[in-house]
Order: sequence, then structure tokens, then C-alpha cells
Amino acid sequence: MRAVTGGPDATWDRFAHWAAVLSDLAGAAGLLGWDRETGMPPRGAETRASQLGTLAAIHHRELVREDAGDLLEALGRGGTLGPDEQAMVAWARRERDRAVRVPEALVRRLAEARSRAVTTWIDARERDDLATYVQAVRPVVALKRQVAEAVGGGAEPYDALLDEFEPGARAAELAPLFEQLTQRLRPLVEPAAAASGPALPRRSWPADAQMSLAREVAAAVGFDDEAGIIARSAHPFTGSPGQGDVRFTTRVNEHDPLVSLGAVLHEAGHALYEQGLPERYARTPLADAPSLGAHESQSLFWENHIGLQQGFWRYLEPALRRCFPGAMDGLGADAMAAAARRVEPSLIRVEADEVTYNLHIALRFELERGLMGGTLDVADLPEAFDDGMERLLGLRPPTAAVGVMQDIHWPEGLLGYFPTYTLGHLYAAQLAAAAEEEVGDLDALSAEGRFTDALAFLRERVHRHARTLPTRELMSAATGRELGIEHFLTHLEETYLLPA
Amino acid sequence: MRAVTGGPDATWDRFAHWAAVLSDLAGAAGLLGWDRETGMPPRGAETRASQLGTLAAIHHRELVREDAGDLLEALGRGGTLGPDEQAMVAWARRERDRAVRVPEALVRRLAEARSRAVTTWIDARERDDLATYVQAVRPVVALKRQVAEAVGGGAEPYDALLDEFEPGARAAELAPLFEQLTQRLRPLVEPAAAASGPALPRRSWPADAQMSLAREVAAAVGFDDEAGIIARSAHPFTGSPGQGDVRFTTRVNEHDPLVSLGAVLHEAGHALYEQGLPERYARTPLADAPSLGAHESQSLFWENHIGLQQGFWRYLEPALRRCFPGAMDGLGADAMAAAARRVEPSLIRVEADEVTYNLHIALRFELERGLMGGTLDVADLPEAFDDGMERLLGLRPPTAAVGVMQDIHWPEGLLGYFPTYTLGHLYAAQLAAAAEEEVGDLDALSAEGRFTDALAFLRERVHRHARTLPTRELMSAATGRELGIEHFLTHLEETYLLPA
Repeated sequence: MRAVTGGPDATWDRFAHWAAVLSDLAGAAGLLGWDRETGMPPRGAETRASQLGTLAAIHHRELVREDAGDLLEALGRGGTLGPDEQAMVAWARRERDRAVRVPEALVRRLAEARSRAVTTWIDARERDDLATYVQAVRPVVALKRQVAEAVGGGAEPYDALLDEFEPGARAAELAPLFEQLTQRLRPLVEPAAAASGPALPRRSWPADAQMSLAREVAAAVGFDDEAGIIARSAHPFTGSPGQGDVRFTTRVNEHDPLVSLGAVLHEAGHALYEQGLPERYARTPLADAPSLGAHESQSLFWENHIGLQQGFWRYLEPALRRCFPGAMDGLGADAMAAAARRVEPSLIRVEADEVTYNLHIALRFELERGLMGGTLDVADLPEAFDDGMERLLGLRPPTAAVGVMQDIHWPEGLLGYFPTYTLGHLYAAQLAAAAEEEVGDLDALSAEGRFTDALAFLRERVHRHARTLPTRELMSAATGRELGIEHFLTHLEETYLLPA
Repeated sequence: MRAVTGGPDATWDRFAHWAAVLSDLAGAAGLLGWDRETGMPPRGAETRASQLGTLAAIHHRELVREDAGDLLEALGRGGTLGPDEQAMVAWARRERDRAVRVPEALVRRLAEARSRAVTTWIDARERDDLATYVQAVRPVVALKRQVAEAVGGGAEPYDALLDEFEPGARAAELAPLFEQLTQRLRPLVEPAAAASGPALPRRSWPADAQMSLAREVAAAVGFDDEAGIIARSAHPFTGSPGQGDVRFTTRVNEHDPLVSLGAVLHEAGHALYEQGLPERYARTPLADAPSLGAHESQSLFWENHIGLQQGFWRYLEPALRRCFPGAMDGLGADAMAAAARRVEPSLIRVEADEVTYNLHIALRFELERGLMGGTLDVADLPEAFDDGMERLLGLRPPTAAVGVMQDIHWPEGLLGYFPTYTLGHLYAAQLAAAAEEEVGDLDALSAEGRFTDALAFLRERVHRHARTLPTRELMSAATGRELGIEHFLTHLEETYLLPA
């Protein structure tokens, strides 16, 4: 174990060892999950699920150990810890307290309900069977409410769920943010859509060339392949099974290179954050972002504030020509950039453009808050969803499969997760504005393939702090701005309404 | 958890759960090890080592739990278990008893000594630094002797180590076997070498084509890629991180396709065994071979009794021409088979041919037995090794790097492992003889690409029994023969001395 000092030695060492074991178990589970999506043969699924269940159960048992509670109390009393060590203890206590507060029987019932709901959801979505979906999600919502009440700590039950993903976030503070954002976004949609350039013509973009371009782009923005790998999967994601080992996947559509390029910049943004976490925090509770919103700010910084700008496509044009000599015929940087920046209200959140995306989230925030607050019943969720889509995006889903049933989050019990995407957009825009002040025109730098200045800015202002600061503090120190929607809206206006 | 009945329900369920948790932990560790060799980026090594250490420690803690001892005792008393359930309890008890007998302090000291010795060995071998090697191996040998004494159960300390890998094996029984084998093998070497055909000319065999041929050959012999994957690594190995998920690697030398083809058949042999274990034994102590010798019999069956015969190369020739149109110029099945069957006394065990291989093992058996019996000091090991090489193979290693220091086994503390290779050769030959009686001429079947009969024979006689029978019993039932050297020698004479 890495030497860490700061407390009465034996107590500290026991704490550090306990935290390292938890980290190792989480890392092992992370690798099993990674492999499930990228390498595992189909028939390995059942046993893999059991293995992940076993690791989760052992992780939970280690987390709630009595003696760990004593250790945390002893370390919390002593005033001899340095700031890093205090932060480690605080994060460990936060995680343990949440786990201890939820009765084991509830944990088990929720795990079963989630597992059943996800299986049911996959099938129900296939058959557009709304009644079955509602029936499967109802117990998950009810049990999540019980979890929220057991965890407590906010003004309303939903707060306890938000707090899991975005520590300190409160529904009453997010509500006005979403309200303003919605009011300002809606009038933007039509003009942005009208100003959009054409989509790419349908051509063949070979998968192998897309994967090698993915590696080239990742390396260009600073991804270190001595400390990570890139693979292909059905849904892009980033994982970090351990210090020095950060992995991400991209999704490849052989008729549209923008799918993978967007995914690569997004996931590389997450991966750069993980690779930028200080090595001394390896196997401690600090080796992560302080929230999902903070993590998402990094992926969206690269995906949108770098990847949707003209400069990036100028830089990329020669590589595109080299990788796709046929498909690029008659296409240039400007056409690619314009296609990447197309705005069009659509039904599916994960395919939404940057202008309409947060309207999808605003709706989900409103619905989740209602479900947890008891003002919305699961039975009324489908209609509320469709009404919201009509109100916010002017589209009524023709089927539930492309409506309320489109996301895994609710069957999976991930209530409170969606709002972190919007926080990511807001923080990313503030970071981009601050980065421009610090390192100059990001677009011009991108055009020269100079991504190091932006990365250095993020390393210094965000990555190196890991979890030593709460997100709001971290971001206001990093950007000199409090959380708000202005920078994001300015970015949208400049990107989508002004002539390029 | 799979439903298993047989004992007083609650006790049995607790036992089955405990065994499944152990299996899950071992499977997770297996995947971490697989990934380390096939995917992990270099900088992930340190944390991966910690994770594997943590999983091993948790596995050990679970294994030696007091309440598991009580369960095993209760299940051992009751006479209501079926034969499968009895075998599960017996295997679990065997593993737990071994673990309980070795004091934790000794386990830790050995783990540290092994880890240090392996690191030292890599470096010492590089620099041909024999003194450092001896110094690093000495404590490993001393601690293994303490382990042997703690475990007990044989007539001499070495027996306890043999028993780990080959349950029931005893040095006093193996010694005459090795002696006869040595006496019969030595006179074979020269004529077999003289009868050898030429090696392949040095040409270019592209790695991609070798990998795709590897997949084709594996599929042909029956490897199910819905339940497994194949990858490339520096050293070939097979792993099974879980039911329905069996993986092997091959090593590719772009100047010699025989390296990979031999490895593919060998590892596919291991993998076919794992894929043939009954699904109902998943996550139980029975989901494995009863010994390493039994496992090795499967790899050697395919590598030598199929892969070194003329028929296999006749079958393979069209695929070889398709994959390597240039390199195969002027080469045919016979030339390939002859090159694969070259015999030549050489220094390195892992590169040895089938005729000389077991002389390398006989030497190691003799030396290990001496080390454990106290008749050979580690300081005298290098000279004893060189003398033995001269006596058995007529070669004196010019450096220790290609002599006593060539294997990882001793630094790694794997004393007692080597003899299982020879047992694998003997069992493989007996199985091949029995298979020929049952399904007909293996060579003729191979020439037609019909490998299913041989596989069906192994599935029926070996694989489906998993660990329900001890190796000796399993093999005598499978082959109608007791363990001996005659079939192996007949195979060698037919393969290497008679004109093809």
C-alpha cells in the first residue's frame, strides 16, 4: 500500500488499508464490467452477473464493517490529519454512512426489483408494452423512495437521490435553474435548426479506419495509451479499473463517422480526467471526481467546446482524407463541422443535439421530482412524459418505446442521475469561457492541433484536485464564476446562431 | 445460485453459497490475470497487483471461515448427500484443510519471498547472475518446506507439494516411473533426431493471418466461440473466468507458424476440457479437472496425438495455402508435419520436442525431491542442474540463464508442479490409444478434418466427469489401462522412428 501519513499511525494505516481494499474491489468489478461489454463471450453472461453480485456484496460488507465505523470516528476526532487525509476520511464516511442507513433487506429488495425491471424493460421496449413497463418500474420507484427516506439529509426525498450522484445538490436549487434554462432554450431551437447545414451524405466509412482515427484523435487530445486502452462497444463508456489503467469505448456506425468521433471526444474527456487524477490518491477515496456533474463537464468540454468548433475539423481534415479517401470526396472541414452541429428537435435523448439536449433533461428532472415527492404516480408517468415532450420540444412520441421507455435509468433505479448531465453542460461552458481567457482562442488552437493548452488548463484547475473540493467550490475556483446558465447560452448562440 | 439439492436444505444452501462465492472470487481473479496478459496498459500493473493481492486475501479469508468448517463437518456427518454433492464437499474440505493448516504468517512470508524472488529472477536471468538467483530462491525453498511440513500427509515433505497439483501423487511412486522413462527415452533421442526432417525455411508468416488461422483451427477441433475467446500474448495460456467463458492465447512468431499452431492445439485442448465440464457444476468445487496431470493430458492429446501426425497437416494444407500464399510456396503437408516433428536435444524445456521433453522434467523432479528432502542444498542446485543436463541430454548449459535459471517455477514457489507435465504425456498417450480403439484411426480422421469423434470420446470419458473421480481412477476408467509409460513410448517410436 502507498505510504500515507497524517494520523496516529496504526489507526491511519488500518483506515488506508480498508479504503484500499474497497478501491480494489471496485476496480475489479469495474474490469469485470468493462470486459462484459468489450470481450466476454455471450455464454459467459450468467456467471459474470453472479460474480458482479458477489463482488458487490463483499464490497458492501467491507464498507459497513463495524470496526471501520470506529476507525472513522477515531480519525474524525483527532485534529492531526492533513487536508488530503481529512478529505479521504470525509469521503469514506459519506459513502459508509449512506450504506449503513439503508437496511440490508431494502438493498436486496431494490437489487431484485432493479434487475427484474431492467430485464422486463428490454423486452417491453421491444414490444412497446407500456403496461408491463409501468408495472416493472413501479416497485423500483417505491423502493427508491424508501431509500431516499432512509438516507435522508435533504428538504425532500429526491434530494437524497440527487446527493448520491451530485453531492450537495438540492432539488429546490436546481428547479429554478432548469426553469430559466428551459425558458431561454426553447426560443433558440427554431432559429438554430433553421441555421443548420446539411447532414452528411450516406457513404461508407470503414470501421477499422474509424477505430484507428479514434486512437489518433485520442492521442492528439492527450490520452496516454501507456495508461489506458480504447475499444469498441455497443454503447460508449469510460471505465478506470485502476490507477494507470483508464479505458474507454466508442460506438461505430459505418454510415456515419460523426457518431464515433463525438463519442471519442466525449469519452476521451472522461478518460483525460481520470488520467489526470494525482497518482498519490490511487486506492484512496479521493481518486475520482467529486460528482458526476464535474465528470460530465470534462466529457462535454471536449465533445462540444472543442469537437463542434470549426477549428477542430480544420485540424482533422487531413486525417479524415487519409482514413477515408473515398468517403471524404467533395467534403471539407466546414461541411463536416456543419453536419456535426446540426440542430433538430428529436425524440431520443442520447441522439439529441446540444441545443435541445437539456430540454430532455429538464423534463426528466421535473418527472423524477414528482415521482419522489408523491405528486406524480408511476401510472401517470407515460402521459406526463408525452405532454412534457410536446410542451418542451413540440414533439409527441408516437410510441412509448421512443418515449418514456427510451432510457435505462428508471428501470435501473438511477433516479437523480439525469440532472448531472445538465450540470455538466453548464460547468463545461464556464470552463471553456475561463480557458479562453487563460490560454486564448480554443478554436484557433484546435485548428493547429494544439490541444495541450486546454488540457493543461483542465489538469491544473480541475483534474489535480480530484475529490479534495466539493464540485461547486472546485468549479467556482476553476472558472471564477458561480454556477449559472449564461455561459452555456452564450456558447449556444455563438455556435448555432452566428455565421461561422 | 443454481439449485442444488441433496443435504439438509439450509446447511446445503449455505455450503453451496459459500462455494459459489469462492468460485466467483477465483473467477474474478482469473479475469484480472487474463486481462493483465492480454489487454492491460503497462502503467496499470502496480494497482492490478494490489487488486489480485486483495482478491487472494479475501478468498483465503472466506475459505478458512470458522462457520465453513462447521458446515463441512455437518455435511460430512450426514449420509443424505448424493455422490456429486459428496464430491463437492470433499473437494471443498480438501482445499480448506490445506489452507487452514498453513499459518497465516507463513503464507504472508512465502508470498513476499515469492514476489521478491520472481522480480529478482527476471533481472538475474537477464544479467546471468547466478549468485543473486540462488539467494532469492533459497528462502522460497525453505518456506515451501515449512508449508510442506505444515500440510503434511505424505511419506516425505515433497509429497505435500505434489499433492497440491496432483492430488494423491507420491514421490516414491513417481520416482520409479521417471527412472524407467529416462532409461527408455535416452536411447530414443539419437535415432529420432537422425530421422528428423528439415526445419522450415525462414519466411514471413504474417501475424494477422496466423491469428485467423488460429481461430479456424480452434473452431475445427470444437472450440465454441459463443463460450470463449482467443487472444495473443507473450506466453500462451488458458483461463476460464467463469462458466461459458473459456479463453486461451497463442504466441505468434512471424518467422515460424509452428510456434502458434502448436500453442493453439495445446491451449485448445485445455479449453475444450473446460468447455466440456458440465454446466450443473458451475460455481461449485467440481468445475475443474481433478489434477494438473489430467488437464495436461487434454492439451497434449491435441498438440501431439493430433497435431504432430501427418493427417492433421493434410487437413490443414489448404488453409495454410489460403492464409500464407507466399510462404507455403514449395511446401506441402509432409514438409510441415516433418518440421513440426523435429527432434533435437536442446537446453530450453519449453522449446523441447516431445521425445526429449520428459528428460527435462525427470531432472527437475529429481532436484525438487532433493531440495525438499534436504539432500540437495540450493547452493548446489546450479551444478546439480548442469550435471543432470549433461547426463540426461548430453548438453551442459553454457550459462545459467539457459540452465537452472530458465524456469519461473522455483522463484514462483511452484515446487511439485513439473511432474504433472510428464503425467500429462503419459495419460495423453493412453487416451490416444483408447480413442483409436473406440473411434478408429485418429490420423485418418484428422486428414478428413473429422475431429468430432476424438472430442466426443474425450467429452464422454474425461470432460463430463469433471472432478467427480480422482485422476488415477478417471484415467483407468477412461483408458482401460493403469498409469504407465508403455503407450507413450510406443507413440514416440511410431511417430519418430518409423517411416511416415
